[in-house]
Parts: sequence; structure tokens; C-alpha cells
Amino acid sequence: MVKINDNFLKLPGNYLFSEIAKKVSIFEKSHKESRLIRLGIGDVTLPIAPAVIEAVHKAVDEMGRKEGFHGYAPDLGYEFLRNVIAEKDYKARNCQINADEIFISDGAKSNSGNIQEIFSIENKIAVCDPVYPVYVDTNVMAGRAGIYQKETERWSDVIYLPCREDNHFIPELPKEAPDLIYLCFPNNPTGSAITKNELQIWVNYANKTGAVIIYDAAYEAYITEEEIPHSIYECEGAQTCAIELKSFSKNAGFTGMRLGYTVIPKELVRGGVALHSLWARRHGTKYNGAPYIIQRAGEAVYTEKGEEQIKKQIAYYMRNANVILEGLKNIGFKVSGGVNAPYIWLKTPDQMTSWQFFDFLLEKANVVGTPGSGFGPGGEGYFRLTGFGTYENTVEAVERIKRSF
Amino acid sequence: MVKINDNFLKLPGNYLFSEIAKKVSIFEKSHKESRLIRLGIGDVTLPIAPAVIEAVHKAVDEMGRKEGFHGYAPDLGYEFLRNVIAEKDYKARNCQINADEIFISDGAKSNSGNIQEIFSIENKIAVCDPVYPVYVDTNVMAGRAGIYQKETERWSDVIYLPCREDNHFIPELPKEAPDLIYLCFPNNPTGSAITKNELQIWVNYANKTGAVIIYDAAYEAYITEEEIPHSIYECEGAQTCAIELKSFSKNAGFTGMRLGYTVIPKELVRGGVALHSLWARRHGTKYNGAPYIIQRAGEAVYTEKGEEQIKKQIAYYMRNANVILEGLKNIGFKVSGGVNAPYIWLKTPDQMTSWQFFDFLLEKANVVGTPGSGFGPGGEGYFRLTGFGTYENTVEAVERIKRSF
Repeated sequence: MVKINDNFLKLPGNYLFSEIAKKVSIFEKSHKESRLIRLGIGDVTLPIAPAVIEAVHKAVDEMGRKEGFHGYAPDLGYEFLRNVIAEKDYKARNCQINADEIFISDGAKSNSGNIQEIFSIENKIAVCDPVYPVYVDTNVMAGRAGIYQKETERWSDVIYLPCREDNHFIPELPKEAPDLIYLCFPNNPTGSAITKNELQIWVNYANKTGAVIIYDAAYEAYITEEEIPHSIYECEGAQTCAIELKSFSKNAGFTGMRLGYTVIPKELVRGGVALHSLWARRHGTKYNGAPYIIQRAGEAVYTEKGEEQIKKQIAYYMRNANVILEGLKNIGFKVSGGVNAPYIWLKTPDQMTSWQFFDFLLEKANVVGTPGSGFGPGGEGYFRLTGFGTYENTVEAVERIKRSF
Repeated sequence: MVKINDNFLKLPGNYLFSEIAKKVSIFEKSHKESRLIRLGIGDVTLPIAPAVIEAVHKAVDEMGRKEGFHGYAPDLGYEFLRNVIAEKDYKARNCQINADEIFISDGAKSNSGNIQEIFSIENKIAVCDPVYPVYVDTNVMAGRAGIYQKETERWSDVIYLPCREDNHFIPELPKEAPDLIYLCFPNNPTGSAITKNELQIWVNYANKTGAVIIYDAAYEAYITEEEIPHSIYECEGAQTCAIELKSFSKNAGFTGMRLGYTVIPKELVRGGVALHSLWARRHGTKYNGAPYIIQRAGEAVYTEKGEEQIKKQIAYYMRNANVILEGLKNIGFKVSGGVNAPYIWLKTPDQMTSWQFFDFLLEKANVVGTPGSGFGPGGEGYFRLTGFGTYENTVEAVERIKRSF
């Protein structure tokens, strides 16, 4: 008789965004006249940039011709893409990352979920609180999180790094030493950014304790301030303690295209084993690469035209973020984020819980946001809004919120 | 100090196809004048069908326009694709599979590697010997295979189901009852097919013992004989014991496009839990769907034009398979497969080991094949060739092999 993986049963409720989708779907069925504005899930709304579309059409034509057809991709991804990433995302920033340390994949969600597989289940993880749920849930599924404690809404074997107003949502070093440290900056959900000096403290700490940092830089393209690093490898010594995850979803609007990459420097060795070789084995055994045409799309993101068009999209979303940030400040909300990230993190008014505020906004303003508590107990009493809507909708959403009070 | 997943270190050598790629690359560098013919890795060579190319172009244009843009896909995949799969692959064959029991993904390799995650690591797996290496390797990584025994080249905790000439490469029920049974028919690597009656024995067995069958039907489109089932759900009672994995790689040439699906009937319950709900949770937490344009490509495979064009491609590959089968028979080889599958399975001549024959063919005929021993100890002394080359190359490869003796 087969036994199921009991760890799955420990997970309380559904994956956050599936839960929101369900609630919204129920609301829509009973409120057919309402026009919802969605500033919840971090999905983009602008179409794919023309330079990318052109490159994809070209690649599709190749796939339709005998001499241009591409079958299975090379294990790490196509060189044309890995080379341009190494050049533009790393060498141009004085980060010593080579093309053969880059693994192309279908996105940062898969990568951040799968990366834990190369580590022992005995490791103790540390996560920010609040946090992107995938880091925790995938460790729960693997049996690395211990037991869920209902009272505290925390896992017994997870080290939580509180991100609060009083530390500007930047975590401090923990008392108990973790083995695996998940950091995401610019941060989802709080929209906060970490300075190079602050991040250097974590890199030094990991090198000293032998921990590994899994650094999710999915929102790097939204950085506007000088002192904020675009990659953890801008910090000295990060090559020997950090894995970096990157996504094309948010910089180039690839949420429906699916492309990302993982960087594992060859110098990153633990227990005498290069983590690069473990991930290469995992990648080669369980995955067959991102589609050729999508890898060509990724390449086009780095062309002159591509970069120019994508910068405009990011500016568009950041204008939205600013509309929300300033608009909510004016109504008297306590808000942060929105300067180096497309996310606005707000304190719910009137002592409402996060889900109460979710329901309130849905009912009163027909605006969908994301309850902070969905990102962990430290997010309770907070709420996330995103700049990924259209400008018109964003302006209207702020107006509607204003009118709801 | 972080600890790595030691299970990875138990894996002997590289993933089979990565190993072959390396050997071939070294050979090519020192034999620049040679023109290799690759009948090794199961990669296709014909371009994507025109009906599919047309659909992808259309979808790419949609992605470039505001009103047609698609972001994150629904968790299970787009309904337009799941509906047509349920209709054409199942209902048309009297299999009671609904669209909401189908999960769209990026291919059968990922699915066959990931599906083990929803089961306890205490389960005992059974695999055919020889077998597609992904089933075993991914269970090793999870810690479910025990210890590798060099003398027998077998894992201590894996139940092997010998597939030999004397059972026509169809496994018999094992003495020790497994919990998870991996079956792949039409088979990779042996090219053998299982009849509905033979498969029914396994379904009955799994229902009786509480085991779950993971049925890889990636080569279903190559079936030519009447009594061979296209889906395990053609057998009575399979809904309560079987998960089916399907791929677009081999029927529609999607090896570089990446699309597949997993079927988990809602009736499939173990320990009081529907496996569908576990996989849904895994899918929603660790994966963000196949690209919109690729799902549209999959939809086009089922159009009248698509089906017609794809049938011709399969006929083309099967003609190749026949060329190899008959050609090698004529030289005096012992061969099987090639009738319901694109694979030819041959006994190596002159007592050569599989890798000796690999080197022999590479050196003497400049033909790349796959050593049978790469698929497990039961494959030693065998060799796999595929019908996925061009017709011209296939004819020439057989000629070259003839001349090598």
C-alpha cells in the first residue's frame, strides 16, 4: 500500500494566490455588475515589448523549418542567452560570474521551490517574516519545517527574521544560526530594499557560519537608488556563500512567457562538494530546459531596443507605484515600499486584520489586493498593493479606496 | 553549516544522455572530418507542423497587444487545452477522464521526476529493467532507493522487473509487493508494447495491493496495432490506481517546445487523501505553468490540420524505424521494437558490452546510439537506436553499420 507524503497535510489551507483567486471568483459570480481592479497578485499587465515579440516570431519561424529546428536544449540553457546574462547582468556590474555558472529555467518560482532539494532535510532554514510563501511551503513539503503551531502561525523548525517598521523591514542577524537563509531584495511583499552595506553583513555572516544564502533578486530591475545592489555578487565574498535567483517576469513582463535563471558560483562549496555540480545534476535529471523560442525572447530583452522598451515599462509601473504610495499617504495610510520595488506595503486601518481589509476593499472599492498575513504572521495587519495595473485603473483604485472611508 | 543532500552523491556517474553528449563532443573535436549520424538521444528532427507554427504566431501577436496579453496561467493550465485533451485523448477512447483531472506542464521528464514528491520516502518503488533513468535517479535523490550495489548495479531498495527476450520485454508481477510502480508503454528503451490484457493484470494487481502505477504513455502516438491500449484508463479500474504521464515531445516534435500533461483521476485515493489534491498543491506551489504561446501550440496539435500533419511526421519516423529494424535483421542482428514505438532494441554482436558497442559504432560507423546498460543492468548487452533521424541519414546509418562488419 502506497503511503502519501504526510508533509503535504501539514500545510494549512491553500497556496495564498490560489486562495485569493477563489475568493475573487466567488465575489464576481455574485456581483456581475462590478468592475474589479486587481492590484493583488504580482502579475504584470503591459504587453510583451515589440523587440521581444519580433525575436519570438523569428524563432518560431526557425522552429517551422528543417534547418532552423531546435530540439532538446543544452542542459544549462543556450549559450547565446547565458553569455549575454553574464555580460550585462554581472560583468557590467563588476560581478565575477561566468556563463557556465548560470542555469536557465522556466522562472523564479520553480527555482526557489526546487533549490532546497540539493540540501539535506536536516538543515534549518531562516526566512524573513513576512515572506514570499513559496520558500516556506516547499520546505514544509520536503519535511524541513517541523510542525505548524497554530497559536503562533509559525513552523517549529523555521527561524523567522522579523521585518517590521522599526527595522525598516530589513532583518537583523538571528540569534540561532540557520543553515539556509532565504533573502529577497527588493522585497516581496514589503517593497523594501537592502543597501550594499546591509547585505554585506549577511554575506560575512554566511561565510563565517557556513550557511548558504538563497538570494531572490526578481525585482532588481525596479531599483532606483544608488546604494542598493542589483546582485548579491556586488558584495565581497558572496561567491562562496550565495545562490542568486533571477526572473524575467517582472523586468520584461514574462509572467506568461516563463523564463528565469539561477546562479551558482563554482566557488560555492559545502562539505567538500560544489553546489554547482549538485544543481547541474538536478537540472539535467528532472528538467528539459525552457523552450527555444522563449530563450530567444530572453536574449531580445538585452538588445538595445529591448532594453529601451523595457525601461519604459518599468517606469510605467513605478509611476503607478508612486500614485498608490502618495495617494494612500494623503488619505493617512502608513505606507512603505514603492521606491525600489513595484510593491506598496500598507498598515491596515482601524485595527483590521489583513483578510478583513481584503474583504473590505473587495466589497467597498472592488479592489483586489493581497492580505499581508498570507505572507506569514509578521504580515498580519498589513496589506500589499502592486504597481502592475494600468495607470488608469491605479488612479481609479486609489480614488475608490479614498471614497471607501 | 549547511549540509548537502547526500543522496545526490550516491548517484554513480552522470545522467546518461549528458554522458553521451560529452563522449560525442570529445570525438567530434578529434575527428573534424567525420559526419556523425545521431540515432541516440530520443530527440526529433522534423520541424514543427505548419498548423502549430501558425497558432504560435497568432498567440505571440496576442502577447504583444494589450488586449491579448496573458500573464500567469491558471494553476492546472488553460481550459482550452485541457478540454481538447479530455475530449480527444480520453472521451474519444471511452476513458472517463475530465478536464479538471488534467494538469498541463512543461513535459514528461519534469513530471516523471517530480511526481514522486507527493509520496512518502518510505515507499518502495518498482521499475522495469532496463528503464528510462529518470524514474530511478529522481527516487535516489529523494532517498527512496537505498544503497547502490556496485556488483549488481542495482539499488538495494528498488524492486526490479526484468524485461528480457524470454518475456518479450513485458514484466511479470513481482514477488515482493511494491508501493509505486513505474510502467512505460510503448516502452523506452526497448520499443516493446503492452496489450490491454497484459496491462489489465497490472491494474488489477495495483488495486488489490493498494499500489499506485505511474504510467508513462509518452510514445502512445506510435502505436500501430489494434490490441495495444493508448491510455492505461482503457483498462477497467485504472481510475483508482493509476497516474498517467503524457508528452507532446514525441507525437508533435515538441522536444524544444516543452509541453506535457499529467492525469490524476479524482477517484485515486490513498490513506484517505485524493492524490489529485496533493499534486494540485505541488503544482500550485512550485510551478507557474507552461507558457501561454506553448499551450496554444498544444491546442493546435488537436486541430484537423494539426492531426493530419502530425500523423505524417509519425509515419515518417516509423518508416525510419522500419528501415533500421529490417536492415539490422538482414545483417543478422537480433532486434525488437520499432512496430508500436520509434525505438529499436538490439542485442550487441560478438558479446560486446553496451558501451563497447557504443564506441565501436561511433568509431567505425560514426553513428551515435544509446548503450542499453545506461538504462539499467538488464540493458547490458543491448543497444537502442531511434527512428527520429532523417530518412536519408537512417538509410545511410544502416549502410554504415553493415559496412562495419
